[in-house]
Amino acid sequence: MTFKVTILGSSAAMPTVNKYHSAQILNVSEQFYLIDCGEGTQNRLMKLGINPLKINSIFISHLHGDHFYGLFPLVSTMSLMGRRTKLKIFAPRPFDEILESHKRYFDIGTGFDIEFCEVRTRENNLIFENKVMEVYSLPLRHNIPCAGFLFKEKTPAINIRKDIVDRFQLGIAQIVSLKRGEDIVADCGEHITSASVTYIPYQPRSYAYCADTQYSAKLAGLIQNVDLLFHESTFADIDKSLAKRTGHSTTKQAAKLAVNAGAKRLILGHFSARYSDTSLLVDEAREVFQDSFEAKEGSVFEILRN
Amino acid sequence: MTFKVTILGSSAAMPTVNKYHSAQILNVSEQFYLIDCGEGTQNRLMKLGINPLKINSIFISHLHGDHFYGLFPLVSTMSLMGRRTKLKIFAPRPFDEILESHKRYFDIGTGFDIEFCEVRTRENNLIFENKVMEVYSLPLRHNIPCAGFLFKEKTPAINIRKDIVDRFQLGIAQIVSLKRGEDIVADCGEHITSASVTYIPYQPRSYAYCADTQYSAKLAGLIQNVDLLFHESTFADIDKSLAKRTGHSTTKQAAKLAVNAGAKRLILGHFSARYSDTSLLVDEAREVFQDSFEAKEGSVFEILRN
Repeated sequence: MTFKVTILGSSAAMPTVNKYHSAQILNVSEQFYLIDCGEGTQNRLMKLGINPLKINSIFISHLHGDHFYGLFPLVSTMSLMGRRTKLKIFAPRPFDEILESHKRYFDIGTGFDIEFCEVRTRENNLIFENKVMEVYSLPLRHNIPCAGFLFKEKTPAINIRKDIVDRFQLGIAQIVSLKRGEDIVADCGEHITSASVTYIPYQPRSYAYCADTQYSAKLAGLIQNVDLLFHESTFADIDKSLAKRTGHSTTKQAAKLAVNAGAKRLILGHFSARYSDTSLLVDEAREVFQDSFEAKEGSVFEILRN
Repeated sequence: MTFKVTILGSSAAMPTVNKYHSAQILNVSEQFYLIDCGEGTQNRLMKLGINPLKINSIFISHLHGDHFYGLFPLVSTMSLMGRRTKLKIFAPRPFDEILESHKRYFDIGTGFDIEFCEVRTRENNLIFENKVMEVYSLPLRHNIPCAGFLFKEKTPAINIRKDIVDRFQLGIAQIVSLKRGEDIVADCGEHITSASVTYIPYQPRSYAYCADTQYSAKLAGLIQNVDLLFHESTFADIDKSLAKRTGHSTTKQAAKLAVNAGAKRLILGHFSARYSDTSLLVDEAREVFQDSFEAKEGSVFEILRN
C-alpha cells in the first residue's frame, strides 16, 4: 500500500535548464494524484515511466501559469491516448472560465469529460474522498487566491487480536461487537474489553502540499502531526522582506511551520532561480528543522506504514 | 553570416519521451526567429544554450495546441528575464483573442509589448522585412487555417571586381555607375561594361517551413529553388488516406513537394508517434528525393553561403 510523492518540477516562476515548473505526483495505493501541473509535466511523467492515463484527479493550487501551463497539453495527450474516464480538476475560480476559453479556442476535443471542482481558497474543506483517502483544502496567503492540499489516508478498520479470537473461540457477532468498541462476555464467562484486544493496524499517513504562500501561523494548526510537508521556500532567510512583498516564504519560515505543525519531514522547493547553490537553502532550514530535504526533479519521498 | 535552423521539437500532436511538440529556431546573422512554439520550447532553448531574450520575432503556423502551448510560458520567462523590447508574434486569427484571454486570466504581466501581426493563411504575402531578410506567408491545407513561412535573405548589394578598380584607377562616381548596371568609359578611354566587372557576392539563402498540411501542388510554385525545406510528413506512405483525412502529408508527398519545388534539401518531421522506427520514414522519402533528413531534437541544418 504505497504512499509516496514524486517531484516532477521544483522551480519558481522562472525555470532553469534542469528545474521545471511546479508539479508533483502522489501515489496512494497505485492511484495517482497530480498536484499542480507546470509546463512540461507530461514529459516529466513519461521520463519517470508514469503513464498519464493513470492520473485519477488533478489539484491546482492557484492560477499562476507556472503552476498549470502544462495542464492543457497533458489533457490533450490523455485524450490522444484514449482516456474515457472523467477527469476531476480541483482548482480555484476562475479556472472554470479558463477551461471554457480553452475549449473555445483550442481545436482539440477530449474524449472524456472534465469536471471542474471549485476549491475555496479561504476555507479548510473536505474536497475529495474515496475509500482510502481524504483531501482537504488549506487556505494559503499568496498574492492571488491560493490553496494548499492535505492528503490523508483514512483511519483503517479496527483489527482484533487473532490469539484472542482463537483462545475464546469468538463468533462473528462477538467479533463485530468488540470491533465496534463494545465489551463482551465470552462463552466461557470471561469479560473481554474492546480496548484490550483491538488495535488500529497502521497509522494513517498524510501529506500536505503548501505552495505558494507567505508564512501562515494558522496553517500549522490545520496540518498537525503531518507525516510529510511540502512548503515552498522561494527565498533565503536574508530575503525575507522580498518574500513578504511577493507572497512567498523563506527557508526558515518553512522550517518554522514544520516545527509548529509537528511535521515529521519537510520538503523545501519553489526556490528562486537567483540561488545557484540550493544546498545552502536546505542548510538554513535545517538550522530550524533538521529533517528538511530539497525537492529535486525525480526525487521520491515515500511514507512507509508503521 | 549565419543562416541555420535548429530543431527544438519534432513530434506530432502526441509527444513521446524524447520528441517534443513543434518548435524550431532560425538564426539569420545572429537574429533569432522562433517558428512554432510547442510545450517545453523554453527548456529546449536553454538546453541548447540559446538565450530566450535573443528571439526577435515568433511565427506561429496555426492554432493547434501542439504548435503553441509553449508560447505563454516562454513569454512569461522573457518578462522575468527583463525583456523590454517589443515582441512581434505572427499568427492566424483568432490568436489576438487568445492573447487577450490569456492576459485577462493569467496574472503575469509582461514588461514588454506584444504586437499581434495577423497571418492570412490563404495568401502569399510579405509579412516581415528587415535589412537582411524577408518572410512570406505560404497558404497550407490543414483542417484549420494554417500557414507556412518562407524565410529569404535579401539579394545582397552588387560588388565590383577589385582588380578592375585598381587597373583602371576608377573613381567613386565610376564605381557607383557600374554598380548601378551602367557601362562607363575609363579615364584611359577603355569601355567597361557593368556586366563584365560586377558580381553578386553570394546567393541569397532561403528556408521554407511547411507544417501542418496536406500535399499542395501549388505550394511548390511559391518556394521554387528553396535551399532548405521543412515539410511535415506525419504519416508513412501506406497511411496516405489517413493523412488526407486528418489534413496531413506522407513521407513521399513531402519528398514529391521537394522535387517539384527544386529544393536542395528536405527536412522531414512531425512524425506520428505510431512509428517507432522513424528511419524507415526517411528511407521512404529518399526513394523520391535523396537529400531528405529527419528533424531530430537538437539537430542543426545550416545553409552556407556560396
